[in-house]
Amino acid sequence: MQRYILDDTTNNFYKTDIHHIKKVMRMQTGDKVIVCLHEKCSLVKLNIDENITFDVIENYDENKTLDITLVQGLLKGTKIETTIKYSTIFGAKKIVLVPFERSIAKNKNTDNKTDRYFLIAKEAAELAHREKIPTIEFQDSLKTINWKEYDYVILADEEEKKTLLKDLELKNIFDKKIAIIIGPEGGISDNERKYCKNNKFFSISLGKYIFPAEIAAISILNNFNSWFFWQLNNYNI
Amino acid sequence: MQRYILDDTTNNFYKTDIHHIKKVMRMQTGDKVIVCLHEKCSLVKLNIDENITFDVIENYDENKTLDITLVQGLLKGTKIETTIKYSTIFGAKKIVLVPFERSIAKNKNTDNKTDRYFLIAKEAAELAHREKIPTIEFQDSLKTINWKEYDYVILADEEEKKTLLKDLELKNIFDKKIAIIIGPEGGISDNERKYCKNNKFFSISLGKYIFPAEIAAISILNNFNSWFFWQLNNYNI
Repeated sequence: MQRYILDDTTNNFYKTDIHHIKKVMRMQTGDKVIVCLHEKCSLVKLNIDENITFDVIENYDENKTLDITLVQGLLKGTKIETTIKYSTIFGAKKIVLVPFERSIAKNKNTDNKTDRYFLIAKEAAELAHREKIPTIEFQDSLKTINWKEYDYVILADEEEKKTLLKDLELKNIFDKKIAIIIGPEGGISDNERKYCKNNKFFSISLGKYIFPAEIAAISILNNFNSWFFWQLNNYNI
Repeated sequence: MQRYILDDTTNNFYKTDIHHIKKVMRMQTGDKVIVCLHEKCSLVKLNIDENITFDVIENYDENKTLDITLVQGLLKGTKIETTIKYSTIFGAKKIVLVPFERSIAKNKNTDNKTDRYFLIAKEAAELAHREKIPTIEFQDSLKTINWKEYDYVILADEEEKKTLLKDLELKNIFDKKIAIIIGPEGGISDNERKYCKNNKFFSISLGKYIFPAEIAAISILNNFNSWFFWQLNNYNI
């Protein structure tokens, strides 16, 4: 069944999806699709005219999902697109792109990039059956981020040798806003590490193996998704 | 520190690495690198002549690692290279490439491909500080694989709605040989599903979200690596 995540400013289909429904899929009035809005999905019947409206047939159960923001150091070339695609699939709710001291890429043409990255995230979210397209934003540095929004901020730090994600013993994470920080290819600088320490962010190790910067986030997101989900099922945390 | 995984047929550097050490890194006798052989790594001092030999300074502790083979349905275009790269980083010990009924790609030019895929895996293993380059092989179908080698065979099946990896309650996995089967983009066919059932392979769901075929393996490998590793540390299984 085809799925579309709706534009949450208009509560209706994105223009590109109207085109997709009419011209690519050649759907007719009465055809059924799944639409998701504000993280709730429904089976609907389409009414196709100049615009497209729909009648809800069935609302699907709401699903508890984690509220995780990825704060990602800018990466070279198309690697950042890999990160956006895969971290969307693995459940990031928001992606904040930041030039770190060791980032070679810079914040340039951010308007064009925001549009392109949005399309990558939208396609990935629909492919993965996520209920929400992550918000993507650029920030000038770690310091311009409003950290007060977050209950837990977690830095993946190659100099942290012991503490793993599970050692943090995070509680009630389904009610918390979580940010994870991943540096660029060259890692984080001492200044950035100090900034994180001064702000009392958690530091974790990703284990003894090294993850390339563009997919390090996946490891943490996957651990959050499966490990805590399993805990939830087993122990009713 | 530069790392090189040695060729386990000659117990010495691969030719490309001799070139890398001499011409790219311009190392001299006395320079130190890390070499890994048969999954054991050592800090060594190089003697650079026509050939390169080395003296061990320190052997690193052996690390318990899981023995997981990824049996991957052939994928279109460069997606299979993404799979090889990332599943190596996430710890696959062997990668078996198989044309499934719904694979569009075929087993063609497998000699050239084996060479290219080996280089991708080698680079990824060294980047990730893995101790071993995964073996890569082509098989004609699921039926030509010698399943008797494996203690556990696990199929990721989109039709399985309940059982998750952790529900299998696998025991003593550090002493076991495990295979995980991931189909191609179009999923597995009814014949293939039946074949797996008849052979009493486990079927698992990857959860309610959908992973593209090229990175589905990562989710399982990551769960094995972190979840079981955490268990090992916590509960001495």
